[in-house]
Amino acid sequence: MNAEIIAIGSELLLGQIVNTNGQFISKQLADEGINVFYHTVVGDNKQRLLNSIENAASRSDLIIFTGGLGPTKDDLTKETIAEYLGVSLVENKEAMDLIEDYYEKTGQTMSENNRRQALVFDGAEVLPNNNGMAPGIALQQDGKTYILLPGPPKEMQPMFLDYAIPYLKQFGSGEESFIHSRVLRFYGIGESTLETKLIDLIDHQTNPTIAPLAGNFEVTLRLTAKCQSKAEGDELINELENRIFERVGKYFYGYDDTSLANEVMKKLQASDLTLACAESLTGGYYGHDLTKLSGIGQVYLGGIVCYQNEIKRDHLQIPESVLEEQGAVSETCARMMAENIKSLFNSDIGIGFTGVAGPNEMEGKTPGTVFIGIATGAGTKVFPLNLAGSRNAVRSRTVNYGHFYLLDELKQLTQ
Amino acid sequence: MNAEIIAIGSELLLGQIVNTNGQFISKQLADEGINVFYHTVVGDNKQRLLNSIENAASRSDLIIFTGGLGPTKDDLTKETIAEYLGVSLVENKEAMDLIEDYYEKTGQTMSENNRRQALVFDGAEVLPNNNGMAPGIALQQDGKTYILLPGPPKEMQPMFLDYAIPYLKQFGSGEESFIHSRVLRFYGIGESTLETKLIDLIDHQTNPTIAPLAGNFEVTLRLTAKCQSKAEGDELINELENRIFERVGKYFYGYDDTSLANEVMKKLQASDLTLACAESLTGGYYGHDLTKLSGIGQVYLGGIVCYQNEIKRDHLQIPESVLEEQGAVSETCARMMAENIKSLFNSDIGIGFTGVAGPNEMEGKTPGTVFIGIATGAGTKVFPLNLAGSRNAVRSRTVNYGHFYLLDELKQLTQ
Repeated sequence: MNAEIIAIGSELLLGQIVNTNGQFISKQLADEGINVFYHTVVGDNKQRLLNSIENAASRSDLIIFTGGLGPTKDDLTKETIAEYLGVSLVENKEAMDLIEDYYEKTGQTMSENNRRQALVFDGAEVLPNNNGMAPGIALQQDGKTYILLPGPPKEMQPMFLDYAIPYLKQFGSGEESFIHSRVLRFYGIGESTLETKLIDLIDHQTNPTIAPLAGNFEVTLRLTAKCQSKAEGDELINELENRIFERVGKYFYGYDDTSLANEVMKKLQASDLTLACAESLTGGYYGHDLTKLSGIGQVYLGGIVCYQNEIKRDHLQIPESVLEEQGAVSETCARMMAENIKSLFNSDIGIGFTGVAGPNEMEGKTPGTVFIGIATGAGTKVFPLNLAGSRNAVRSRTVNYGHFYLLDELKQLTQ
Repeated sequence: MNAEIIAIGSELLLGQIVNTNGQFISKQLADEGINVFYHTVVGDNKQRLLNSIENAASRSDLIIFTGGLGPTKDDLTKETIAEYLGVSLVENKEAMDLIEDYYEKTGQTMSENNRRQALVFDGAEVLPNNNGMAPGIALQQDGKTYILLPGPPKEMQPMFLDYAIPYLKQFGSGEESFIHSRVLRFYGIGESTLETKLIDLIDHQTNPTIAPLAGNFEVTLRLTAKCQSKAEGDELINELENRIFERVGKYFYGYDDTSLANEVMKKLQASDLTLACAESLTGGYYGHDLTKLSGIGQVYLGGIVCYQNEIKRDHLQIPESVLEEQGAVSETCARMMAENIKSLFNSDIGIGFTGVAGPNEMEGKTPGTVFIGIATGAGTKVFPLNLAGSRNAVRSRTVNYGHFYLLDELKQLTQ
């Protein structure tokens, strides 16, 4: 099955935004074993969109459209594709209810053009939008599959994963053997170092294959097996995974779609331990990263953000002498931040972050100098780091190293 | 002059990288007044690349290719286009000298396929590569312009700016006028409501034009004028901007590439006021959003993250009776959080966030119920909100509303 992705929106052609939808969908389709042969971007213009649909229908089996499903007058994706396919548009009750609910709940008045968002192709499958108003649409015609998705990534991505992928699986790729894969996530090791340690496996493995990918300050390995059953695939992957863990197991933290924060939460919940944090250079980022997760309230109490030395002194009880002699960016300060937040908030574990995010030096220390303190019932440890990158890369990496070291401590505590 | 950008590379179709070249070139061409009507991405495959060239030549005057000029076997852009155009490839002496120099300097041995990088179209203009080995090529044929650029952005971008743009200017777009644009950023109003209020302007304006775009929980309007000079463009845009501000000025917060957090920081710095925050449902997100900004240390002191009621009671001095009778998610609690953090941290302004992020109800209140308190020298205000969306949409919107309301208070304070 050969696919083509058509992104619609003049803002893409003006260079105001970049076509991340094309990338996201391509990645997902590659995982499903579906080849993507073309991406096209076209503006909110009926004639040029028709031209793109004709080209796509002449060369691809699966055509995925993103964008142009909104309420405004320049959103004309649905109308144009309906005209090309010769199908009529009908109002979808679920989508209309959702739109009316939204306006009722927020007390805004619904303008007439909002109703257009609830129109779908007659006889097509409707893909619900759990993060916005315009539903998606999937349709088979003349042996080709047409899928329409909204443009905003926060609506498109979950819709694609939750509804479009299952829809595609239902039709199958026409092959008997199937693809089974597992993602291993690593932190604290660079992509090229990881690759060097595994180079013979990467080069000589044929089934499963190993695909390294550098992600958001972490590295993942995707192990992909061709197999006749899930059980056979699991067996092949387990065997390879063991060989990988022998070499780089200490950097591994979780499988598939998890995150470092999620692993920390699961571990705290399983051990019934509470956490509080003291943040300086991260300014609230660590707490934010945890509280993205539903269920974190069971284990996370809160913290103190001490962006200034007076706050460290008055609210975290860091002695003036430590701040003056060793500085706020010091091992001692990180240790005391962790210990003091633990005792002030009466938590089982305290974590403290201090350092220089940049772009300028502080206390004569270079940007990227970071100390993370972790205080538990078993004592306190401080992890010094020397991080590369921009201000926000340093802050992100600090947060992720915090999760990674804490996870390691939790594993040791609960062994 | 209508343009099309063709990016070549299988890594784009596998989703390993995103087509930032398409965005970069589009933005530059828009500034030159050249319309981009299509982007295409195609893999390193001769037949499919030929198909894309044919489509482009049938509909566009200017065709810009990026990628596939490298030394490896799958780089076949030049050979394929040469075949399509019926031109021959000849070795370019300057490019060849550059390649030989590189290998001499680094002491590596040059493999034979590296010579292929120095091949250009016979009779074409060569665009020097100051950041890599493969030169670019520009050619006119049958009234159409073909430009070939390398794929790596650090090579492509300077080559495009330094050589391709001057090359295009030499042929001219046939028009004397140029394009001037300005982006207006709005918060607290939906895209369709904004559009409804401006629909007559959007429909009947021809110069400048108005293009609405929904972004990350905000809406922008791009005003674009065709003009003879920057001064004339500014005058045209100012006039239209005034008409827009008469209707929706209260939702406007800034121009071009700014953000709500950045406007808050600038306003605090200009007024020499300090800020502290008390965060419940946002869990540190507000402080994080501020501390992304370099320079925030001048005005932001820090805060208390009170994710649990005991922390609100013991560290923010919210009376047990308020938490029990009105609840943590209440106007009173938000008011006290703002006032108490202001006095505890001895800041000029205190901001407090409490609410239900979801997915579950809390204290019988539905997800999206949020209160933001802002305490200043002029008194305290509480802003109640009823937000739609997922847990993280509610948290994001809360942070942005916090910035927006605070900005408004700061404007009133400093009038």
